Amino acid sequence: MSDRGPLDARLHHPLPHLAEPALTLTEVAGLRAAGVAAGIKPSGRPDVALLVADEAVSVAGVFTQNRLAAAPVALSRAHLEKTGGRMRALVVNSGNANACTGAQGEADALEMCSRVARALGCPVEEVLVCSTGVIGHKLPMGRVREGIDAALAALSPERAAGRSFLQAIMTTDAFPKEHGEAGEGSRVAGVCKGAGMIHPDMATMLAFVATDARWSPEALRSMIPGVARGSFNAVHVDTHPSTNDTFLWIATGRGAAGGDEDRARVERVSRRLAWMIARDGEGATKVTTVTVRGASSDEAARAVADYVASSALVRAALFGNDPNWGRFVSQVGNSKAVRDVTGLRCALQGVVVFEGGEPTGFDRAALSAAMRAEDVSLELELREGRGEASVMTSDLSYRYVEVNAEYTT
Amino acid sequence: MSDRGPLDARLHHPLPHLAEPALTLTEVAGLRAAGVAAGIKPSGRPDVALLVADEAVSVAGVFTQNRLAAAPVALSRAHLEKTGGRMRALVVNSGNANACTGAQGEADALEMCSRVARALGCPVEEVLVCSTGVIGHKLPMGRVREGIDAALAALSPERAAGRSFLQAIMTTDAFPKEHGEAGEGSRVAGVCKGAGMIHPDMATMLAFVATDARWSPEALRSMIPGVARGSFNAVHVDTHPSTNDTFLWIATGRGAAGGDEDRARVERVSRRLAWMIARDGEGATKVTTVTVRGASSDEAARAVADYVASSALVRAALFGNDPNWGRFVSQVGNSKAVRDVTGLRCALQGVVVFEGGEPTGFDRAALSAAMRAEDVSLELELREGRGEASVMTSDLSYRYVEVNAEYTT
Repeated sequence: MSDRGPLDARLHHPLPHLAEPALTLTEVAGLRAAGVAAGIKPSGRPDVALLVADEAVSVAGVFTQNRLAAAPVALSRAHLEKTGGRMRALVVNSGNANACTGAQGEADALEMCSRVARALGCPVEEVLVCSTGVIGHKLPMGRVREGIDAALAALSPERAAGRSFLQAIMTTDAFPKEHGEAGEGSRVAGVCKGAGMIHPDMATMLAFVATDARWSPEALRSMIPGVARGSFNAVHVDTHPSTNDTFLWIATGRGAAGGDEDRARVERVSRRLAWMIARDGEGATKVTTVTVRGASSDEAARAVADYVASSALVRAALFGNDPNWGRFVSQVGNSKAVRDVTGLRCALQGVVVFEGGEPTGFDRAALSAAMRAEDVSLELELREGRGEASVMTSDLSYRYVEVNAEYTT
Repeated sequence: MSDRGPLDARLHHPLPHLAEPALTLTEVAGLRAAGVAAGIKPSGRPDVALLVADEAVSVAGVFTQNRLAAAPVALSRAHLEKTGGRMRALVVNSGNANACTGAQGEADALEMCSRVARALGCPVEEVLVCSTGVIGHKLPMGRVREGIDAALAALSPERAAGRSFLQAIMTTDAFPKEHGEAGEGSRVAGVCKGAGMIHPDMATMLAFVATDARWSPEALRSMIPGVARGSFNAVHVDTHPSTNDTFLWIATGRGAAGGDEDRARVERVSRRLAWMIARDGEGATKVTTVTVRGASSDEAARAVADYVASSALVRAALFGNDPNWGRFVSQVGNSKAVRDVTGLRCALQGVVVFEGGEPTGFDRAALSAAMRAEDVSLELELREGRGEASVMTSDLSYRYVEVNAEYTT
């Protein structure tokens, strides 16, 4: 049997130790924010968030590929297309995803934008909208309207306002997720929410990263797929993209011209935010970075990394601090992106566990102890080429089963 | 919180109620069998199994696609190719998969075959071999040799010998898996083992189905992919094919000429055996059949069914008896095999829960109660064409996490 004691104790879900972030959204020049409680969430917690730029700013977005995309996703996509990548404001509600809500849902998403646009005196298409929460329920528009009006009245460039915005986009998150970085040429801050699709029918990863650097909408649009690929799209919690996933990159243009440094800063902030999502993955106790090298191409490397990172068997072994080389390498052998496994090498926390077609004589107890960490590294090396990729995954715990099986409405 | 009581109690893994099977392998005319304990398993349970045909018989096989296929898989494939689909004997050991064992592993697999061939006086390529158990360890060949000799001496056409064969191929199986059917023109019996890849590094699904009908090797070879596709390849336990998976279809030719009836009988027996594997899926409490209709092709339907059935979120909802339409339909929306979800209809245990882009007003409590069954049906209907497919999946329980995270060597 197990050495972990009674099972109830094993549901414990320790939180990460996060440094107080240096920056929040409103510390990026040109942005004001607010977060208010409008009564959409039964808990009474903040649930309407508003972010307003002093003038229209550059923005690009990456949205869920789910064919059942929610009304706000479809509308924000359309607005970005109309403006060519300019926005004045972003309105978000949590507690209700406005997904699978039919024609009424589309009308409600549009009304959220138009209410904000009217107050700010801007075209409706300069307002983007996101919703997150339960799906299949119509928005309580009376409360949403009151919430929007209260948020408009509360808009502020203060640090506290940025924190309120973040509080109001959270749903089942176990901890707030924000990260920032300032340096030569720019100041970058980002917030996100998301921890898988938790019951009851919870949807969504939302991420908003702002820089004060000057970028054209075209430049953001060309760069954002790469940023997303290395961060929010590189997270495996349960490989089940939601109907509402949205990542926006906002550039207020108040600082210097955008360049490699700002781009790298946005990438680092995005990657750290994505790490927090994996860390808060339903019941996760750690984040494992799966790196594949030596594949025939970067795409092949990514396919292998995704395949390994999404395996329930692999993720359960990570939870159990089990240096289970057999699961890791046999999953590589199963991947259609691999032709030749003769050169396969597998290392866990830097220790080579498989090489030359056989397991090495590693110290299982010592390696298991080394896996009891918040960050675990799983490296898989092939000899097919120079392709490389890296993804992050949460582990599969009792708590995952509990949150996904038992919290029935 | 949960209504299920203390978590430890929730680890309970009830077994299915199986009728005593009408037939076992040795009741197919022309087959003798044996199963003995050779000390390969630390438990001392039977671990060497032998099946011998009175003369060379027709056989076809389907093997793992894993590029890290074990030595016995490679050898059996080669033997089948050399003989064109004839076999005299099948030797199996459990307790050690002879996978990731290098050149020594290849020599050991060959020696297992040649020892049996010498005793029977047949060419070595008429002997097939399977191994299942821990991977990365060399076979204890002293014990294996003794076990083979003991099995040769114990060969018998009695029912008890067929049961001994089955006992000796089992590893972590919670219950023996056999099924048979007799009718006009043929008598079919099958056994299998497998319950996912349980730790410590347990490999393998093995399935052997025999009929006394007369089929040419070519006929079996042309039919076996279709049979596997509807049975053993339609099972989702953890979507992690092992290094050793093997399915053999043996036709002894003692009965009537093979025809549609015998083929259908083999299909039904194989499907029932596959159901047992899903039912014994690590910690499974039920088997859910996911059926997709109205896809653009059968292949597309299968891709959607596989995608839904392999989702940890979906499988956790099934464990929780949670009629979570949002997870089921959003996973359909995520599948690349689907273009148009406007006509999507979802039914659970026959109750329509989603239609016309929105959830229906179904009775959640009643449906949840209906899901507390050993067999659950999840139907997904598209309006893209006439493609149809059906797969079986186990649910994702606490017990799954326990067996996959905590039983570290």
